[in-house]
Amino acid sequence: MKDATGTDDSRTCSDPASAIQRELESFLSRRRASLSEIDGRCSDIADRLERFVLGGGKRMRPRFGVAAYCASAPSGDPTASADIDTAIKALAALELIQACALIHDDIIDASATRRGLPTVHVALSSEHSDAEWSGNSDSYGRSQAILLGDIALAWADEMLSEALLACPTMSIEFYRRAHSVWANMKTEVLGGQMLDVHAEATNASDLDTPTRVNRFKTAAYTIERPVHLGAVLAGAPPETIEALRTFGVSMGIAYQLVDDMLGVFGDPEVTGKPSGDDIREGKRTLLINYALNRASSADAAELTRALGAELDAEQLARSRDILTASGAVNHVHEEIERLTSEGLSALDHATLDPAGEETLRRLAGQAVDRAF
Amino acid sequence: MKDATGTDDSRTCSDPASAIQRELESFLSRRRASLSEIDGRCSDIADRLERFVLGGGKRMRPRFGVAAYCASAPSGDPTASADIDTAIKALAALELIQACALIHDDIIDASATRRGLPTVHVALSSEHSDAEWSGNSDSYGRSQAILLGDIALAWADEMLSEALLACPTMSIEFYRRAHSVWANMKTEVLGGQMLDVHAEATNASDLDTPTRVNRFKTAAYTIERPVHLGAVLAGAPPETIEALRTFGVSMGIAYQLVDDMLGVFGDPEVTGKPSGDDIREGKRTLLINYALNRASSADAAELTRALGAELDAEQLARSRDILTASGAVNHVHEEIERLTSEGLSALDHATLDPAGEETLRRLAGQAVDRAF
Repeated sequence: MKDATGTDDSRTCSDPASAIQRELESFLSRRRASLSEIDGRCSDIADRLERFVLGGGKRMRPRFGVAAYCASAPSGDPTASADIDTAIKALAALELIQACALIHDDIIDASATRRGLPTVHVALSSEHSDAEWSGNSDSYGRSQAILLGDIALAWADEMLSEALLACPTMSIEFYRRAHSVWANMKTEVLGGQMLDVHAEATNASDLDTPTRVNRFKTAAYTIERPVHLGAVLAGAPPETIEALRTFGVSMGIAYQLVDDMLGVFGDPEVTGKPSGDDIREGKRTLLINYALNRASSADAAELTRALGAELDAEQLARSRDILTASGAVNHVHEEIERLTSEGLSALDHATLDPAGEETLRRLAGQAVDRAF
Repeated sequence: MKDATGTDDSRTCSDPASAIQRELESFLSRRRASLSEIDGRCSDIADRLERFVLGGGKRMRPRFGVAAYCASAPSGDPTASADIDTAIKALAALELIQACALIHDDIIDASATRRGLPTVHVALSSEHSDAEWSGNSDSYGRSQAILLGDIALAWADEMLSEALLACPTMSIEFYRRAHSVWANMKTEVLGGQMLDVHAEATNASDLDTPTRVNRFKTAAYTIERPVHLGAVLAGAPPETIEALRTFGVSMGIAYQLVDDMLGVFGDPEVTGKPSGDDIREGKRTLLINYALNRASSADAAELTRALGAELDAEQLARSRDILTASGAVNHVHEEIERLTSEGLSALDHATLDPAGEETLRRLAGQAVDRAF
């Protein structure tokens, strides 16, 4: 295919995970060196970011992006397509956006656990209290975690730009096209998060709000924009980009709906988060809002009281029962199926490389096929 | 000069403040429109960022950058210099980096007031409690302020890139050169902030730590990198860039030392912040650390107890007396003078446009000549 560097392109297309990991390792190790020039104490703190990024996650966002790159028919215009190594490095930068989003989100949600480990702000707070430093440990953990999230966001941009600017076929016009996808994605994910926080505070119980949150907070930066960026880097024609984005929006919302189910019914062993967290945090998911709209008024009132409250196992079980009895669980299952089928059928009508398309379908399956 | 757009270039060079303001207004109004496409509730929240950015600040960072641009001798290479409108827009993006730094810093320092008004997180928290929304008002204010700071950081990059990519003489190599100054600056300011938070927690009382914090948290992104970026955009030769950076480092540290004096002795009417805040917050400034190292052991112990404590007017007056009696106030005054003279003399040996150099000297004077 369009690789002149001697990499086995077809292998990278079907399984880019190790190449993504290598790019992240190399970038973060160079950034650590610049921080240690400022002060060794900074690079020690940033080690936590490095461990967080390198130690976990399924690399879903870059993998969707690379699959879209591989699936996109090459445009034939060498000034409007990048080699696969550039694409992988540029798309790996999505993991740093993800790191910022998770670290800041865990502060916002006051989450103590992530991927089965203490969240970044909690780990930093423990470091403070273990060392018996001055001031409040929670404030310290939160402050450094805010800054670590900021640096992840700053480095995400740097990694993307570094990748694009090193590409021998890059032009200003091509750079502008790739960069605008990236910039829009950041506004969408942050806007979606703001809306989510606002909805929780205002007890927004309509069905439109969680759908918008899912569309922008999750779908945009999890699948839609990664496949969009991958397709732009491959120099795909507009109709291919359009099909891939439609696929990404539907699959991205479906992915979030699965997450919402896991947030109530998930097994902590599998999710790495306490079971029922979404109810305790008072999240306004489609699952919960559907139940509030459709349950009997007594059940709806009971569920409303449970949202944001400390719950014992029995109370949590009652909330789950209300979600099921109201039809919300069924509704969300049906929505996941509908969106999945809509997303996959967008691929049917696009002109795609068969192996790349196969990978997109496989990743889509993994995104929605998680046990709950 | 190098302006082909009909702008009165010499006027923009000597007083770019209104052009900077126009660029910020135009960029933020377009970004508000994209947020309102996500949801009107997001753009309402982002209005606070817009008011924060447009409503205050002396535009010191972009003004230093524009002055350096105007002072730099044009390289004569049209593929390695940008027109003044590009430079102004690119440098105005520094105000968005500044907005992120201030909004997140105010959360970190738990500051209630900025520019004589409630800080962003405090204003958002009041909005929550006034409307009697659900959950904790402080958490809500903090959460949205974290996200607003993130969006300011994301938009800063977007504004910079938008400016550079629209420049007709832009090449990939020229873009790379400008972008690397920008990227390094972000790592420096965030690394400096991490070190500052760490120093406060560990009661670092050495003199090297505050100097490093001043160098990276303040000097780099307040003067050094803005003049560096301005010079790169003008296509200045390496020796001019070197001289301007030396100027920027010295003047930037001097500026922070003035700020440290204001943080203890400043008039709230002038600073917009409560007097003595640095002592109440337990900041580890050069002023304070010098006193801890040089005061009598009884005075040093008393000052140590005051750091991070709630103080009444009499206790604050005692701390101020200790700072003066220890020689710290004198030492910091001498340092400000030494750095200012060092910074200005770096300009003596550079080949600069006289009017641009005059503006740089005037801005340098304003940076250190604030009453305390």
